[in-house]
Amino acid sequence: MKAVRLHAFHAPPVVGEVPEPTISGPLDVIVKVGGAGVCRTDLHIIEGQWDAAMGTPLPYTLGHENAGWVHEVGSAVTNVTVGDTVILHPTPTCGFCRACRAGADMHCVASTFPGLSTDGGMAEYLLTSARACVKLDPRTAPEDVAALADAGITAYHAVRKAIPLLYPGTTCVVMGVGGLGHIGVQCLAALTATTIVVVDRNPEALKLAESLGADHTVVADGIHVQAVADLTGGAGADVVLDFVAEQGAEHDGWAMTRRAGSYFVIGYGGTVRIPTLDIISTERNIVGNIVGTYNELAELMALAQAGKVTLHTRTYPLTAAADALADLDAGRVRGRAILVP
Amino acid sequence: MKAVRLHAFHAPPVVGEVPEPTISGPLDVIVKVGGAGVCRTDLHIIEGQWDAAMGTPLPYTLGHENAGWVHEVGSAVTNVTVGDTVILHPTPTCGFCRACRAGADMHCVASTFPGLSTDGGMAEYLLTSARACVKLDPRTAPEDVAALADAGITAYHAVRKAIPLLYPGTTCVVMGVGGLGHIGVQCLAALTATTIVVVDRNPEALKLAESLGADHTVVADGIHVQAVADLTGGAGADVVLDFVAEQGAEHDGWAMTRRAGSYFVIGYGGTVRIPTLDIISTERNIVGNIVGTYNELAELMALAQAGKVTLHTRTYPLTAAADALADLDAGRVRGRAILVP
Amino acid sequence: MKAVRLHAFHAPPVVGEVPEPTISGPLDVIVKVGGAGVCRTDLHIIEGQWDAAMGTPLPYTLGHENAGWVHEVGSAVTNVTVGDTVILHPTPTCGFCRACRAGADMHCVASTFPGLSTDGGMAEYLLTSARACVKLDPRTAPEDVAALADAGITAYHAVRKAIPLLYPGTTCVVMGVGGLGHIGVQCLAALTATTIVVVDRNPEALKLAESLGADHTVVADGIHVQAVADLTGGAGADVVLDFVAEQGAEHDGWAMTRRAGSYFVIGYGGTVRIPTLDIISTERNIVGNIVGTYNELAELMALAQAGKVTLHTRTYPLTAAADALADLDAGRVRGRAILVP
Amino acid sequence: MKAVRLHAFHAPPVVGEVPEPTISGPLDVIVKVGGAGVCRTDLHIIEGQWDAAMGTPLPYTLGHENAGWVHEVGSAVTNVTVGDTVILHPTPTCGFCRACRAGADMHCVASTFPGLSTDGGMAEYLLTSARACVKLDPRTAPEDVAALADAGITAYHAVRKAIPLLYPGTTCVVMGVGGLGHIGVQCLAALTATTIVVVDRNPEALKLAESLGADHTVVADGIHVQAVADLTGGAGADVVLDFVAEQGAEHDGWAMTRRAGSYFVIGYGGTVRIPTLDIISTERNIVGNIVGTYNELAELMALAQAGKVTLHTRTYPLTAAADALADLDAGRVRGRAILVP
Repeated sequence: MKAVRLHAFHAPPVVGEVPEPTISGPLDVIVKVGGAGVCRTDLHIIEGQWDAAMGTPLPYTLGHENAGWVHEVGSAVTNVTVGDTVILHPTPTCGFCRACRAGADMHCVASTFPGLSTDGGMAEYLLTSARACVKLDPRTAPEDVAALADAGITAYHAVRKAIPLLYPGTTCVVMGVGGLGHIGVQCLAALTATTIVVVDRNPEALKLAESLGADHTVVADGIHVQAVADLTGGAGADVVLDFVAEQGAEHDGWAMTRRAGSYFVIGYGGTVRIPTLDIISTERNIVGNIVGTYNELAELMALAQAGKVTLHTRTYPLTAAADALADLDAGRVRGRAILVP
Repeated sequence: MKAVRLHAFHAPPVVGEVPEPTISGPLDVIVKVGGAGVCRTDLHIIEGQWDAAMGTPLPYTLGHENAGWVHEVGSAVTNVTVGDTVILHPTPTCGFCRACRAGADMHCVASTFPGLSTDGGMAEYLLTSARACVKLDPRTAPEDVAALADAGITAYHAVRKAIPLLYPGTTCVVMGVGGLGHIGVQCLAALTATTIVVVDRNPEALKLAESLGADHTVVADGIHVQAVADLTGGAGADVVLDFVAEQGAEHDGWAMTRRAGSYFVIGYGGTVRIPTLDIISTERNIVGNIVGTYNELAELMALAQAGKVTLHTRTYPLTAAADALADLDAGRVRGRAILVP
Repeated sequence: MKAVRLHAFHAPPVVGEVPEPTISGPLDVIVKVGGAGVCRTDLHIIEGQWDAAMGTPLPYTLGHENAGWVHEVGSAVTNVTVGDTVILHPTPTCGFCRACRAGADMHCVASTFPGLSTDGGMAEYLLTSARACVKLDPRTAPEDVAALADAGITAYHAVRKAIPLLYPGTTCVVMGVGGLGHIGVQCLAALTATTIVVVDRNPEALKLAESLGADHTVVADGIHVQAVADLTGGAGADVVLDFVAEQGAEHDGWAMTRRAGSYFVIGYGGTVRIPTLDIISTERNIVGNIVGTYNELAELMALAQAGKVTLHTRTYPLTAAADALADLDAGRVRGRAILVP
Repeated sequence: MKAVRLHAFHAPPVVGEVPEPTISGPLDVIVKVGGAGVCRTDLHIIEGQWDAAMGTPLPYTLGHENAGWVHEVGSAVTNVTVGDTVILHPTPTCGFCRACRAGADMHCVASTFPGLSTDGGMAEYLLTSARACVKLDPRTAPEDVAALADAGITAYHAVRKAIPLLYPGTTCVVMGVGGLGHIGVQCLAALTATTIVVVDRNPEALKLAESLGADHTVVADGIHVQAVADLTGGAGADVVLDFVAEQGAEHDGWAMTRRAGSYFVIGYGGTVRIPTLDIISTERNIVGNIVGTYNELAELMALAQAGKVTLHTRTYPLTAAADALADLDAGRVRGRAILVP
């Protein structure tokens, strides 16, 4: 089958022929891919940023954001059957560790992460497991929802954790309105009555944010920290959701966070540098975020089905993966790029 | 009256004569000081570290950890009367802002911080307000409990926030068993069944920790991060309470924190430097901590009265304030030094 | 001044002349009433239902839902000044007890409840305290917002407590769309993405509910428990907010609550009768609700100012109090009746 | 094999011969029973109380509290192997429903409940599933820990839910110190610093409670509600854990609960009858409790291993099941009766 293969860091992935995956375990599931999202993390993987944390298994197939149809199932699979339309939680999990038994799928001690630690979904078929499958209405087109499998779940997870902090009268800053951020804004609007302030370099992204529920938009032009201070009576935001967290955003995000507030790190690439005196004298928090739980993905599908989260996507054929990655890198994608095998 | 006055940064405070405070507002309370704790923060104030955050009002009287007897009250004070034994919440608050109305006293938008932003309690009398007074059993000796007013409330506040994370089977690291840490260990033992691992440079401090409820102690000798890894099957601690947070402890504390765990910053002086990729790929949190609420101080007094928290203190006459500060700086104080006017 | 006085149980209150209230304590505030809500609780008071719990102080002035303008203040009042437009938290509190210091105003051990335990606001002037005053934009007309002071805060408080239970994919039943319920529906729509099912006897009330955000409406015609089962795949609702809780609603509400769900009691008048086996075998909860906190009232005002909660009211002159009560009793009021002195 | 069989309601179960269970599903596990607890629920099952809720499958084998050794495993079982010592979560679960994916094992939509809905563990062998097995230190004797599998997990689950309500200075009443209650007292002492007040009819049970951590004991002699009022300054307890909930305990428990407090129902057999006015005017809660989660059972095992929970048990041979049930019914068992096949 065709697959988008990464052979070396700092080199563009190429479309090549590889064998189809096969069932070996009783809970294995093979999915015919209907849509595979293209993510800034793919760029970071190509740069080698994830090698230390994950051990990128070169050469391998990219693609950690997938939806499709069940193609084949292992002998003990009972929750889906061949032909079902599914969206896939990004990390097939063991089901037996403390984290799995607590519903914290992203902290399973024995999970894989297809597209990062094993072959991913930028291919015709993908090997996953029963526990990763969220069954969908059969009328759903996988390419329409694939972006919810990683961008969506990650944005939703961060927003859901922030809800108790975002009662009426508070302010939430969203930094970066790309693939994740444009979903984050909608989740905030659907689940809270906080005042949403969106910060982005790109005026078009800010226009999109306004149409999705932002109350205020701020161009990231160098005086945006002051702009947020002005919008909050000098206090700063109760919560900052930083979907960028590199190139200085990680300093601005912290600076925008008010006393007793929380700075959520969702993007990555930069480094926070904060005096501990600054952390304690204001009692602020820095909150890490990664993916989300299986149930959160199901909740997000409920939000999407109710029309409260709408994806902005642009599709490319699988063979045009390089174009999609280039467009993303150059800031030419509004919302999310999706490969369709 | 006599008071311990700081006239300039980097110079030792001196005992001098100043006028007694007077009542001006209807909710003012003047307390005859019975005990005033000596804190590492006093050393940091003398070094000028707090000037940027608080505007240290030189010259002024140190002392932010106080207990004593009510000496005089304003016209609208109803909760205490002259002669009452009291311990003082460190920040007299306005009572009307959102934070006050939520019980988050330490985030009052109009509080003062005697000993940091106004004259403190290393003196014969202290001006505070009705809302800062926690009434005690009249048989309590203020010098015996004064250390709970700041060291105690701060350690208790951090532990209380951590309780939901510390179910049986978890591990909590306590870094530093000084004035705050030795109370923190006791609060952990009283309020959780977590495995308590204490890290300190000083073997005597570790002995004290063992007697207070530590399950394991680790000398901070350069291989202590590995020692914590070994004690936790390689995973790290669910929670790290860092009562040091300077001189490298702030890196060690983060390194000891497991995936999905939380690193609580309570001490200060250092600077955290963490790649955002490291924050998100493990979904760890950095949690700021400052003082605590009025109710938390009352709760801590209940713990102390039940014998579940016992202070290790060493008293000095008010006139020996310089000795107490020198002993603290040199690591010669086990527990807390208390000035008695 | 004119006031609506209750002289005896089971007899209609009458408008009479009483002396204006006067300032006696340093934190007293006298408010010129601009709007006083008429509540089902007033009917219950007249029936004597509150006498056992509160000691109704006959004869006295009704009215526990008030907004107006500050008319006079005590010597220690700093948060409002004469002329300020204010909405009043229903229970002036002591500010010093554990509950007050935790922000749980409705559980103050020394509060009064004007309109229940002392003279209320169906009068030209009302005696309250500084801690009860929420300052409003001076352009606000008190009669437009008065209903938020009790109906609003109570509905908001219950919804706010339910938010963590109402993630996307859940169902919340609202029983009764009167003064409280019509605000509750709007709060749910503003603060959650739950599926809102409204149950009421009155088809017009259901029409109002639809316009305010209900996803489904059910006529309470005897088969409404089954109707809710049908809407939830047989499982029942995750949360039932019962704004009626009398005349059988209290049985229906429990029956509509799913396994592991919560039945919120907000209305009153009936009696729950439930086998403990039924409680434990399904692990369901019964959650009491009364008024709300000062901060919740402020949050609700933020919601109202943002246009996310709109009151449906009908005004009557103070002298027509008897008509308003009669209309309410007969089910002729959509939303809330407001007396304007 | 031998098994304790219930053939008809209101008739004593008898020991008889039945076929050994066999593996049919890939995740099935057969356990050689080492200890099977005898529970008040067994008496209630015999009385027919559970038939309506569970459909008691007469004739069948009793026993819902089991520990032993893995005897045989299905083809897809990976978390345990033959010979492992295990304690069993009482409800084998599907692993795929929302509740399972949230860790709320007791609310699985497709679980069985061996001993209630299918053959239980008062037998030589028991059929369960991989997801029910908690692996233990091989030196553990199953008969020593079996009581934690149902009595333990249920008591622990209720206490764990109550922890956030039980800060220092609060009071918790434990009603009934039998199989569950004597574990509940120890969990409270290990996990909170609340004042523990134990109420029981039996003076010997109260002595046991004192030795396990009770601060006060009260004989349930008719004036015990007043006794709790006296111990709490008239306010009542913040939390009441009612392990009885029949024969009037369900009224006393509610009456002992303070304003804004919570009454936890854990036992059953009685009926709560409460005016909704009483629920709302005090904002009290009634909290259902059933079993607990898989992780809670693992946490409890950690507590037990640390010596913080010690079981008081009395063993009987499997063939003496009738004696054990009779002793329990007559109040002759302190702690828990355990059958050993």
